[in-house]
Amino acid sequence: MADLDPQSPVGIEPSALPVLRWDDPPEGPVLVLLDQTRLPGEEVELVCTDAPALVRAIQTLAVRGAPLLGIAGAYGVALAAVRGYDVDEAAELLATARPTAVNLAYGVRRAVRAHAAALADGAAPERAAAAALAEARALHRQDAEASGRMARYGLSLLDELLPAGGHRLLTHCNTGALVSGGEGTAFAVALAAHRQGRLRRLWVDETRPLLQGSRLTAYEAARHGMAYQLLTDNAAGSLFAAGQVDAVLIGADRIAEDGSVANKVGSYPLAVLAKYHHVPFVVVAPTTTVDRSTPDGASIVVERRSGREVTELTLPRSASREGEGGGLVVAPLGTPVYNPAFDVTPPELITAIVTEEGVISPVTRAGLAELCARSSQITIS
Amino acid sequence: MADLDPQSPVGIEPSALPVLRWDDPPEGPVLVLLDQTRLPGEEVELVCTDAPALVRAIQTLAVRGAPLLGIAGAYGVALAAVRGYDVDEAAELLATARPTAVNLAYGVRRAVRAHAAALADGAAPERAAAAALAEARALHRQDAEASGRMARYGLSLLDELLPAGGHRLLTHCNTGALVSGGEGTAFAVALAAHRQGRLRRLWVDETRPLLQGSRLTAYEAARHGMAYQLLTDNAAGSLFAAGQVDAVLIGADRIAEDGSVANKVGSYPLAVLAKYHHVPFVVVAPTTTVDRSTPDGASIVVERRSGREVTELTLPRSASREGEGGGLVVAPLGTPVYNPAFDVTPPELITAIVTEEGVISPVTRAGLAELCARSSQITIS
Repeated sequence: MADLDPQSPVGIEPSALPVLRWDDPPEGPVLVLLDQTRLPGEEVELVCTDAPALVRAIQTLAVRGAPLLGIAGAYGVALAAVRGYDVDEAAELLATARPTAVNLAYGVRRAVRAHAAALADGAAPERAAAAALAEARALHRQDAEASGRMARYGLSLLDELLPAGGHRLLTHCNTGALVSGGEGTAFAVALAAHRQGRLRRLWVDETRPLLQGSRLTAYEAARHGMAYQLLTDNAAGSLFAAGQVDAVLIGADRIAEDGSVANKVGSYPLAVLAKYHHVPFVVVAPTTTVDRSTPDGASIVVERRSGREVTELTLPRSASREGEGGGLVVAPLGTPVYNPAFDVTPPELITAIVTEEGVISPVTRAGLAELCARSSQITIS
Repeated sequence: MADLDPQSPVGIEPSALPVLRWDDPPEGPVLVLLDQTRLPGEEVELVCTDAPALVRAIQTLAVRGAPLLGIAGAYGVALAAVRGYDVDEAAELLATARPTAVNLAYGVRRAVRAHAAALADGAAPERAAAAALAEARALHRQDAEASGRMARYGLSLLDELLPAGGHRLLTHCNTGALVSGGEGTAFAVALAAHRQGRLRRLWVDETRPLLQGSRLTAYEAARHGMAYQLLTDNAAGSLFAAGQVDAVLIGADRIAEDGSVANKVGSYPLAVLAKYHHVPFVVVAPTTTVDRSTPDGASIVVERRSGREVTELTLPRSASREGEGGGLVVAPLGTPVYNPAFDVTPPELITAIVTEEGVISPVTRAGLAELCARSSQITIS
């Protein structure tokens, strides 16, 4: 649908946001992370000198977001190799730091394979370590490139869908540089619109219960000087009713083969509102998000999370207070809670899916399969 | 639509929840309020000995909810009269304690008129004070009766709409005994279903930003032993998608002459979800909520509230912490916020409006006018 040539060179710069970087001071190489649990109040860097430190950072959510976890995992293996630790042991620790993060294991595996291949070719340990680091850097760069391509495809799509320009875009959860080696997925499209002077307003859903919208997306939008405005998730309805939303842009946690999209809870009601108000609903995600072992939306198992996320108000790093979860208690003791982490939007409510390989619209099983086939031709797996 | 005879006797008992009561200890009469700012953590009574104390309670939201404010205002006038204070001065203070609460001024006016009429008839001050108190009690009783009638009409309607029974009802904000002289509006219908063993589940939206759902509705539901479950507002979508919602029940802050309903923000998206999923969307409110000076939904001016309600997590009574609003700061400094208090649902998305005078379905201007005419025949204004 978008008319961008998918083979054209894409000039991507890594994000200026120091989310994750490899550093090599005299004391030895380290992986430096922006501690996301301190945002938006403080920008604090976390320095990891070995895999166990990185595992702690992953488990405390100092670093989070599927693509970014993959990159962190690959660098973690490289760190172990360069510092002369046991690479297999580090890889095992890292790959299982969070059980459901597929990308994490994928990134670890890529660095381990590069390291093992070099050793098998008779390389010295230093050269094998350098190969692991090169692979982590390649993954980092590839992810940044995928962000850039999604941003360009997404912006072309918006230009087609909304020829009048002056886009007022609504987004949910956090899909920017904080989850990516580049500038993210849905957020990257809004950022591209901003840079071209075509973003009139970015509406940012706060995204209960964990407030990734207010804590992280608002932080990224403010940092870029974008015209953004925060709202409670339930206030989106009146924005649609007032004609204040031109398109919805969201990311995806998993895409089934039929094009059903699992994403942060609250995405589906936005899709229904968008349909009712004839507003385009656009999903932006890399092809690696398509899960070929999930045939349709009904097969997606949605994680149910602790009710404390809803019954207690807290920040990840807030000091322990009254509640067992360390937050301000806002519901009666023992209140039962329905707290799904995600919801599933069926393809008929999705105007388009934007990937690094191109755009499909309408969303069909065949179209999605074709994009994924294109992707697998160039991706090392 | 409901087959309940509106003239049949209704056996209403005042709510067992000690929201507001007149007491007469040896030290002199007092008005005792349940301090709603301490809920759900603590049940603390607040004793008002004069109108200024009641004004403070109103302004700090210790007592809130439109019908309940009217009752409090009437008792406040009676309190001044019985204790021998200047009644006109007390009435002026009370009527203006919160500028937009129409019911508050209405309740004050009723007690003042009863007091003045008694004096004009040559009654002694004690008898005139007793007349003011009798009027406050009459208003209290009438409001409780209206709750009871709405509950019965609403339950009859549910029986018609959902003949299979085993209702799973979704509600938003707080509409129970904490806003009423009786058991409330929408919540009273769910409570009636519970008492008849026909409530399978009450889904309680937390209702951001002020969390009236988690703080107050969950408290009332728990107190009655109802089968309730709390959720973030944005999680309602997946409940509809899973067929877990049989009907939506909400209250109303204002109803325009065309049947458009202004209610707590988040009501409109529920109406759109309900429409999309063919689920009845029912509004429960007394006829006094119909504003005859508002012809349609577009004429309703929606209050925009402080962004701090969204950028800081707080409880009304929480101790002052980092933010200027006294809460945990969750968004970047200076974040602009869209924070409307209400949204407006047009009549075509509303299955029925339930009042103490009966039910209209479909919602039409003529039907609403007829109900209001019926009400004005029996209401002292």
